[in-house]
Amino acid sequence: MSDQNTNGRVIEDETEDDYALRNQVVAAAVAAAEMSDRTLLEEVLEPLHPADIADLLEQVDADDRSAILLLAGDLIDGEILSEIDEDIRDEVIETLEPEVLADAVRELESDDVVDIVEDLDQPQQEAILDALDMVDRVAVEQALNYPEFSAGRLMQREVVIAPAHWAVGDAIDHLRAQPDLPEQFYHIVLVDPRHQPVAYVTLGRLMSSRREVQLADITEDSFRTFQVDEDEGDIAYAFNQYHLISAPVVDEDGRLVGVITIDDAMSVLDEEHEEDVLRLGGVGDESLSNSTLEIVKRRFPWLAANLLTAILASLVIALFEDALSAVVALAVLMPIVASMGGNAGTQSMTVAVRALATRDLTGSNALRVIRREGLAGLLNGGIFAVVMGVIGVIWFGSPMIGVVIAVAMVVNLLVAGLAGVLVPLALDKAGVDPALASGTFVTTVTDVVGFFAFLGLATMVLL
Amino acid sequence: MSDQNTNGRVIEDETEDDYALRNQVVAAAVAAAEMSDRTLLEEVLEPLHPADIADLLEQVDADDRSAILLLAGDLIDGEILSEIDEDIRDEVIETLEPEVLADAVRELESDDVVDIVEDLDQPQQEAILDALDMVDRVAVEQALNYPEFSAGRLMQREVVIAPAHWAVGDAIDHLRAQPDLPEQFYHIVLVDPRHQPVAYVTLGRLMSSRREVQLADITEDSFRTFQVDEDEGDIAYAFNQYHLISAPVVDEDGRLVGVITIDDAMSVLDEEHEEDVLRLGGVGDESLSNSTLEIVKRRFPWLAANLLTAILASLVIALFEDALSAVVALAVLMPIVASMGGNAGTQSMTVAVRALATRDLTGSNALRVIRREGLAGLLNGGIFAVVMGVIGVIWFGSPMIGVVIAVAMVVNLLVAGLAGVLVPLALDKAGVDPALASGTFVTTVTDVVGFFAFLGLATMVLL
Repeated sequence: MSDQNTNGRVIEDETEDDYALRNQVVAAAVAAAEMSDRTLLEEVLEPLHPADIADLLEQVDADDRSAILLLAGDLIDGEILSEIDEDIRDEVIETLEPEVLADAVRELESDDVVDIVEDLDQPQQEAILDALDMVDRVAVEQALNYPEFSAGRLMQREVVIAPAHWAVGDAIDHLRAQPDLPEQFYHIVLVDPRHQPVAYVTLGRLMSSRREVQLADITEDSFRTFQVDEDEGDIAYAFNQYHLISAPVVDEDGRLVGVITIDDAMSVLDEEHEEDVLRLGGVGDESLSNSTLEIVKRRFPWLAANLLTAILASLVIALFEDALSAVVALAVLMPIVASMGGNAGTQSMTVAVRALATRDLTGSNALRVIRREGLAGLLNGGIFAVVMGVIGVIWFGSPMIGVVIAVAMVVNLLVAGLAGVLVPLALDKAGVDPALASGTFVTTVTDVVGFFAFLGLATMVLL
Repeated sequence: MSDQNTNGRVIEDETEDDYALRNQVVAAAVAAAEMSDRTLLEEVLEPLHPADIADLLEQVDADDRSAILLLAGDLIDGEILSEIDEDIRDEVIETLEPEVLADAVRELESDDVVDIVEDLDQPQQEAILDALDMVDRVAVEQALNYPEFSAGRLMQREVVIAPAHWAVGDAIDHLRAQPDLPEQFYHIVLVDPRHQPVAYVTLGRLMSSRREVQLADITEDSFRTFQVDEDEGDIAYAFNQYHLISAPVVDEDGRLVGVITIDDAMSVLDEEHEEDVLRLGGVGDESLSNSTLEIVKRRFPWLAANLLTAILASLVIALFEDALSAVVALAVLMPIVASMGGNAGTQSMTVAVRALATRDLTGSNALRVIRREGLAGLLNGGIFAVVMGVIGVIWFGSPMIGVVIAVAMVVNLLVAGLAGVLVPLALDKAGVDPALASGTFVTTVTDVVGFFAFLGLATMVLL
């Protein structure tokens, strides 16, 4: 698709599905592997982008994957390795011949090698490090010394720099004399004599300025540095918030040690979102390539936590066995109150968790947001109280049942709105990721309050 | 923080909280506005990045916002306007003096003006268009002719191009002779005589190549074009999948009409994630700046849908009134089965919805994923069946209640796993965003199946 000669034609064909790996391609690769037809397999894989080959390997099952790798393992290059999901990367690396693996990693930039190596077991890590040149190996090992998920792991070490006192002409001559510039760079970082970055100049600005102009006079306002131990999530946030394209990374003495570019920040942003969505859904870290047993194991703790809260809710119900025996309508209606509370709580919680992640919910507006959620819970509670009150009366012919469910609805939707914002705020304050645990707490509150309010009121009013 | 002179000091101070707007700054701005102290307000706002000023205006309440704008509306420039949440942009624009608004939009690139104008009401749109030069106005109006959320709205029109037959020296001379290059550009797009883009060259590569090298010999493999009416979500996906930095946009004849850069793609990716998270949480499009009434209105439909499904579940319960009257333990235990099913269904659904969004779940692996979810449901169902069976027996002293809840648990967790993946797949096939509606359907299924299996079995076994 990226072939420039067929570009005109390709544009005509391009539809939404072109980005997703076409099902036929996957089927063809599997068929070729099953027939041990190496030529066909090569033909199928050859036109694909490395990211798409990685997706293909993720989408087939474990047997097909090893058949493909057995037949054409030598086609797996470094780029494919660095694109592949970490859950199956071990498996892929184990299948590859040592020399294939060595060739694959040698062609990568050191930050991509770090990305691959950091998730591997010790022996596999050693195998890859051994394949590298001494210079690259040192670079990778240094990066591994920085904390996981820090700027030091994310950055590339190759930075194009210039002394802050240079003119445009000096910089252009210097660049044009360099034998190997980094593959991607967008800025020239100006450094002071202590090797501390002080500003940057875009390549475009450099190209369009006269030779005698001082670099210091054409620097960009967007300049901002990160510390080498800073969290990658904060960096991704800053790139998105301040529209950064690249930013220098400095050590504790403020000296330049590397540069982070927007494409890396974009990947981090994407991964953080993935993590948030999965955590909000009560799933840990899992992917489609995980085996059944792996997902059973990973989902179990969340389900176990849910069982505890469900039993708690049952204990509340058990307090009112007399009322339930006397009026069976209560058993029929009680899940409605709990369900509406759970739903309203999840709404309020989703907004709060998301706003905490984007730093829109802060100490400055927390009180206002809490008040707003409480009010919104009361209002929607009021509307649904009337609706359910009427339904209750019609269905069971008892005005008192209508009143009981109406009052319980208002109470539970108010509590749901408040819990939905208070629980994430409290978790955030306690240093726990609100996406991770808010759901369980919020639904526990809405279940317990819902059953208690409804059955408690019923006991008072109806018995 | 981006001030180069104080950089050394700033680095020392920089902590996670520095990215979030400090609460004291917000409080100071509000205090200054309340005291009508224009000098103080200017002092507070002056060091802030436009994105942070926009966040500040979003975080304060409507009264404080209008007080700040009344006092210092002329400080609101185009960049702040384009950063501000669209929910309060109308409000801000209405407060600004016409000439302040005109100045603000005139300084923006045309794609940013499009971004502001597209969400405004007709009269406000007119006011902004009238403030623009004829050239910019035409550019904005042309962009508005492209569908919303399309490449045409996202792209910038200024592209740096070169004929495909040029050498490096020609391109450098040409660039250096240009009076105004775009603010941000990373590639020189090579075009054929029909003005169709055929390849691109990075600025870095251009700088480091000898003058006589042909541009055609130093093009990048990553080259890929987008059609002007293509969906921005697909474009953001492609940027992330293929690590693009910029990509030309072409019209239906394959002619170059603009270029999309990665920073715009990153914003789109972020917005799409936001939408997915909120939809999965049963919240429409809402933000912290919405008023109480607005969020009541926006959440109401989701709650109403939930009420219908809750009533459906209640109707199922009502089928078994006899069993519930006879054995009150059933009323106590039945929410546990439904709750566990709802949780397991949400897990399976979250993974499926996310995998559909990232195009990891496709026709190629759907069957395998469905099988995996069914099996995982059975296995976790089996584990929790044993646990709850034992609890049921101990709690109520009745082996039959233990058996009933155990069997219902297995059935519901199996159904939950399957529904969690089948519902999103079906919605996706039907062209509905799975994030939007999966939750309601899945919990309806697990509630109905949970209550039916548990109470139905109980009726057969216990009565």
